[in-house]
This record gives sequence, C-alpha cells and structure tokens, in this order.
Amino acid sequence: MPFTEIEYGVADGIATITLNRPHRLNAFTYVMRGELIEAFDRADADDEVRAVVVTGQGRAFCAGADLGGGGDTFNHRRSEEMYGGEDTVDGSPRDGGGTVALRIARSLKPVIGAVNGPAVGVGVTMTLPMDVRLASDTARFGFVFARRGIVTEAASSWFLPRIVGIAQAMEWAVTGRVFSASEALEGRLVSRVHTPEELLPAAYALAREIADNTSAVSVAAIRRLMWSGLSAASPWEAHRADSFLMNALGAAPDAAEGVTAFLEKRPAEFPMKVSEDLPDAVPSWPVNPYGLT
Amino acid sequence: MPFTEIEYGVADGIATITLNRPHRLNAFTYVMRGELIEAFDRADADDEVRAVVVTGQGRAFCAGADLGGGGDTFNHRRSEEMYGGEDTVDGSPRDGGGTVALRIARSLKPVIGAVNGPAVGVGVTMTLPMDVRLASDTARFGFVFARRGIVTEAASSWFLPRIVGIAQAMEWAVTGRVFSASEALEGRLVSRVHTPEELLPAAYALAREIADNTSAVSVAAIRRLMWSGLSAASPWEAHRADSFLMNALGAAPDAAEGVTAFLEKRPAEFPMKVSEDLPDAVPSWPVNPYGLT
Amino acid sequence: MPFTEIEYGVADGIATITLNRPHRLNAFTYVMRGELIEAFDRADADDEVRAVVVTGQGRAFCAGADLGGGGDTFNHRRSEEMYGGEDTVDGSPRDGGGTVALRIARSLKPVIGAVNGPAVGVGVTMTLPMDVRLASDTARFGFVFARRGIVTEAASSWFLPRIVGIAQAMEWAVTGRVFSASEALEGRLVSRVHTPEELLPAAYALAREIADNTSAVSVAAIRRLMWSGLSAASPWEAHRADSFLMNALGAAPDAAEGVTAFLEKRPAEFPMKVSEDLPDAVPSWPVNPYGLT
Repeated sequence: MPFTEIEYGVADGIATITLNRPHRLNAFTYVMRGELIEAFDRADADDEVRAVVVTGQGRAFCAGADLGGGGDTFNHRRSEEMYGGEDTVDGSPRDGGGTVALRIARSLKPVIGAVNGPAVGVGVTMTLPMDVRLASDTARFGFVFARRGIVTEAASSWFLPRIVGIAQAMEWAVTGRVFSASEALEGRLVSRVHTPEELLPAAYALAREIADNTSAVSVAAIRRLMWSGLSAASPWEAHRADSFLMNALGAAPDAAEGVTAFLEKRPAEFPMKVSEDLPDAVPSWPVNPYGLT
Repeated sequence: MPFTEIEYGVADGIATITLNRPHRLNAFTYVMRGELIEAFDRADADDEVRAVVVTGQGRAFCAGADLGGGGDTFNHRRSEEMYGGEDTVDGSPRDGGGTVALRIARSLKPVIGAVNGPAVGVGVTMTLPMDVRLASDTARFGFVFARRGIVTEAASSWFLPRIVGIAQAMEWAVTGRVFSASEALEGRLVSRVHTPEELLPAAYALAREIADNTSAVSVAAIRRLMWSGLSAASPWEAHRADSFLMNALGAAPDAAEGVTAFLEKRPAEFPMKVSEDLPDAVPSWPVNPYGLT
Repeated sequence: MPFTEIEYGVADGIATITLNRPHRLNAFTYVMRGELIEAFDRADADDEVRAVVVTGQGRAFCAGADLGGGGDTFNHRRSEEMYGGEDTVDGSPRDGGGTVALRIARSLKPVIGAVNGPAVGVGVTMTLPMDVRLASDTARFGFVFARRGIVTEAASSWFLPRIVGIAQAMEWAVTGRVFSASEALEGRLVSRVHTPEELLPAAYALAREIADNTSAVSVAAIRRLMWSGLSAASPWEAHRADSFLMNALGAAPDAAEGVTAFLEKRPAEFPMKVSEDLPDAVPSWPVNPYGLT
C-alpha cells in the first residue's frame, strides 16, 4: 500500500518520514494519522532502520488539524465520519493525535523531529514523544488549543511538562500563543536551532551518530527503559528492570563485541537484531491500563 | 465578609489578590490562610475572572510564617490555637501552607505570581502551584526551613523538583540559602525578572494575553488536564482524559466559534461559561487519596 | 575493616569519599561497590557528618566498570563470581551500580559529587542520586552503555530524565556520546563547572553552607521528603507527609532554637541528632515494592 499523505524512505540505515500535504501546510487528517502509525510499524520491523527522522514537505512542518470541516471540525459526529469512530476508549472516540503520539512513544527506534517550519496544534504535540526536536529558525510553534475552544491533546498534558517543566508548559498552553524557534529553544522545547539549509543535515548527523556507534538492541532496550523510567513509581522499579536487562544482555553477543571492540580500539560490529534478539525483559512501555495501542 | 489581611479586586476580567500586612512584610497567618482560600473560591465562581494575579503590598511579597509566637511558632499546641486544629489528616493538624497550595493547585483560573520583594518560607512555597512566577529584581527567595529546624512544607517536595529539577531543588532546600532574583531565574524558579515598575504591568499583560484570546472553558480544562498530567502514571491515562474532553468540547459552541473565528481571521467571542459548561470529564486534579480539599 | 578501593575520611563535619584505584582510572569493581555502600552507612550513622563529598583520586573520577574481564565483563556467570550472585531480584542478580545508586538515594546526609575528571558508564550513573554535581573543566561524561551492547543501569532511567529532562536524557543515552563539562552544564547534568584547583574548595564551601546553617534533623527529613516527593503520586501525598513532619518537628527543640536564633539575629545551635531524633514520620524513601535495600 503506497502512502498518499506522507512519504517514507530508508537510506543508509535511516528512515525519513515526510508529512506530504504541502498545499495544506501538511495539515493533519485521518488518512495521515493512519499512515504515520503504519510508517512507524514499518520502521520498527525493519532491522536496516537504526533511527527515524520526521520532517515536513514545503515550508511548513504541520499546521495542525485540517480545518476544512469549519466550525464542525472537532465535532463528534464529524469525527466519527472522519476518524472512523470504531476506535474508542470507554465509549469515547479516541483522540486522533493521541493514537499517533502513543505509537511514536512505543517506537523501538530513536525518533528525531526536524521541524522545518510552522508546527501548530497537533503539529507540535505529535513531536513530543520524539526523542530529540531540532528546529529551523523559520519554525513557529503553538499549543493553540485554548484559542480554538478545545484542549491540549495527543497526551501532551503528560509529555509537555516532562519536557519543558510545568511552568513553561502552562504558559504556552493557557495563552495559546504562537512563538518563535528561539523561544522554543529558550524554553527547552527544541534542543537546537539551525538555518533551514542546515536542519536536515544536522538531523541526519545525529541519526548517524546513533547508527554508527551503537547496538540496535541496546538502543531499543534503552528507549523503552528510559521512557518507562519516566512512568516508574520509584527507582526501585527501574533497578528491577535494569537487573533483568543487564542479566539478559550482559551475556549476549553484542556485549561481548562492544567491550572487545572498545578494548581493541576499533569500531564495533554488533551482530544482534531488534527483530529477533530483544529480551523479553524489555518493558512494554509505558504502563497502559486500558489495553490501547 | 470583607478581607482583613489580603485585598481582592477584579478589573477587566483579571482578579488581583494582594497580601496585605505590609507592617509585617505580609507574613503568613491563620487568618491570611483562610482568606487566600476564600479568594480563590471567589475567583473560580466568578465567570468574569479569566486569570488571577497574586502580589504583595509594600516592599515584600511574603516574609514567611509570622514568627510572632517566637520559639513556639511551629509548636503543635500553638498551631491548634493558631490554625484551628480541627482540620487534620490521619490525626495530625494539616500543614497550613499546604492547604493554601492545594487550593491554588485546584484553581480553574490560571494564576500568575508577581513576586515584588522577599518571598521566604511559605512566602515562596505558596507560589509553586501558580502557573507562572514573574519577579521584580528586588525579589529574594529562600526555602529557609532547614535553618528553622522544620521541613519544606506546602507540598513543596512535590512541586519544587517538578518545576526546577531535583538537583536545584535539593541545593536550595538543604542549604536554606536566601538567593537573588537572578539566581531564581537561572534556576528556573521564575520565568522572567522585571524592574519593580514593570513587574505588575508584565503580569497583567500575560493575564490579558489569556483573557483576550482563549476560551475560559478550554483554559480551565487544560489547567486541570496539564497539572493532572504531571500526576498521571502514564500517557495512556492522559490520552483517555483527552479523548473524553475532545469528544465533549469538540461538539460544543466554543469549538465552533474558535475554528470559525480563526478561519474568518477575526477575534473569537466564546459563549461558554466555566460555572455552567465545564464537562464532567475534566479531571478533579490531582489524585487525592485522602479526601482532603 | 579498612577500605582498599576507596578512601573515607571526616573533617570539620564533612565526610569525603574518594574513589581510589587511580591506576585503573578508579574503575568500578565488586569490592568498590561494597565499600561505597559501607561508607554511606558510616556517614549516616555518624552525627558528626553533616554532608558527604564524593570525588576521585588522580586524573579520573571513575572510568566505569572495570573491563578487565574483557568481552565477558558483563556476562552473568562472571557477574556471579564477581558480584557474588547471592543478591537477586526475582531471580536475576541485582545490577551492581544500582545497589550503590539506591544506597546513595537513601542517604540521610546531603551528597555532593565533585567530578574531577572522566565519569563514564557507572562512573556517571552513580552520581545521579547525589544532590548536587559540580565538575572540573577537565571532566568528561558518557552514558556509553549502547556502545557496549548493554543498557543504562544504576536506575539511571529513573534518575536521569528527572534531572536533565527526557529529551536530553534520550540524546545522551541513545548516542552513547562522550561529552564535555560544558555540554554537561548546558544540559543541566552538573550545576557548576570549576577549574581543577577550585573544584574541591567549591564542593567543601557548599558542604559548609549546609553544615554551618542548618538543623541536621531538618536536612535529613527534607532529603527524604524531597526525593520521595519526586516519587509521590500527587501533592496530596506530600501534604500528608508535611503535616506529620511539621507536627513532629514544630514542637521539637531544633525549631525552638531555629526561630529564636533567627529572631535574636545569632547563629543557631541545634541540639537534635539524626541518630536519635529523626521522627518516625520521615518517609523511608522511596517506595520500594521489592523489599530491596
């Protein structure tokens, strides 16, 4: 099945997902939602993929939900038609941005957001479960939900205060302000700001740093461990998971190669594959009491 | 009932609460505690109020607990007399600063602290559940509890590390140091530092940015959602709350107006009221296992 | 029992723990693990000790696990031999770094890391439960686990994102990059960077600020309260603990002396001792569902 609203490609071990509705500033739709989830499924299943870069086609990253439905855009009946309606939690249709955010949160591959232009509404909240956000100096950000009469979605009430702190999160969320890349950097929403020309090269350089130096199984296990650590009630839970994983991976081929290569001062050639060798002890992050994906 | 130790006023949609014992540097008392709780009750019940600004009369914000009781100030028997004693948790009198902090945490209106001078002890911990803290360059801060033989109160062990990080929280808490506005800014306790003349105008400008652009119901729902998100065990809980709220609010008049006004490039006129239209799905933040207010 | 791989000394109320295998860049071993735990036991039991400074002998802080075992270093059978094997959680040998980290987390005395040189692997993760990290400008840091085929250990998946935020934590953890003191400062892993000559004086000055001004019982109670606050499900739990502790300590001699000395503008002479006077209400931080130490 070819994608119609995103592009997906893999080169040199790095998958690139490009939001691809430039005539609508890559506005988010039900189709895009499904394609994004499918793209992350592919990246996880493909051992060639060591990291994922997400960016937008044209001058925007993502302008938010497509408001083509006008005042009825967020109406439940419309969302049943638009979003399927079959996917519910305790009787409510699931928030669409949230289904994407939670899929990204579960990714086994590190995810780098390369925010090339405006990222507003779900356009910014979908980036929160990514590991690192880099921005072009032409990027703009806005948690504009309060200006539209709705709420911060995509589980951003969980992610945002853990990324930027509760005071910064509240200021952006209750003003609904659209702000610059430099305010985003100052507030720690993005890690670095680049010129438009340097943005994708910087994202790929970071992806390469991961791909060229690390065990894919270690990275997948660490991604689950670290994000689930943010959910863990105490460090004793983290210690228990560490103990299982150090026990499982410490005796496995990647650890033998990793230490040997380091001692021999040569690049490591890790033999293990995420698709086959991920220990059962890896947490299926995070705690999901509702049986949702 | 008129207030005696605070002032409360509403103008242009913004409530101002002024700590008003300037002869005692606005030191905290049992009376002030009750008046602060009552003032936040009024602000929540008044649909005219879109945001709350808290500041101090005279040269201080709040010098902490009034030490007029001398060495006996924090003594239990004195506190029974001073603090009423009828309000207990599992047999202990409730910490007075905490009753105020938890009331502010539950506010349906965004709260902006305008710290105009020294904010020490409960004078600073009461600001932690506010959404944004702005400071005058004459402000001083101190979590001085360890220097008085007591502990960080007002649930600050929950709030402070979530605002400034655990390393900064521990350094301030175990030294008991009194520090400058610039150290507070560097350590992310306050969002911005202003001259004394510019402090209140900056606080009101931020309040106006909220009042002029957003749905009051959205803001109330987001405030509960975001703070409760900081308590949520995982993003799946946040997603469940999002789904309920997007379902309830997406079909409601404020969302129709918010999107329509945006598409028509005009200011929105949101019709809904917090007092009447807040969805049942709004979390009664945060998890309170003890049935306390 | 004299220590062989660390040094432990107390002077002027401050304990210093020095990692002491300079010929191996203070690499971590099973022996060092046991000695570190024992040293923190001593510091907690000694009322003379008001704060603990941890540093390294020679040019390194700690180069990580001693890789003398080559490719078999992290192998389970080797770890049974090396780490004893008798200390397990649900059938897995406990992660060794984690046993040290959790012991530091439970310390009743504030802990200051003085990172004098490279701190890599367990060399950096063991510092995360310390309260404040100061670094020499010659320090280097690396969460290199993904480059060795293992995972971030020592409960660092719990500590690190709570210290530096999840985005910074993920970038360091999935790249396995070795980075400078200035990158550590920028990313908030360390609080301040000093010249090599100024590092230990700065650490001792901070320890003195604690020792000279505060109640030891307050500091111990606050340390437990604040770290456990980071584990607490909501501020209502923190408020309950505050209420117990304010009730217990507010009527005790240190509070009387602390307030009286403040009013008399003289240094306080706190009479209480951690070994005898710590209230039962102090949380035995943090929640440990597995009964581990």
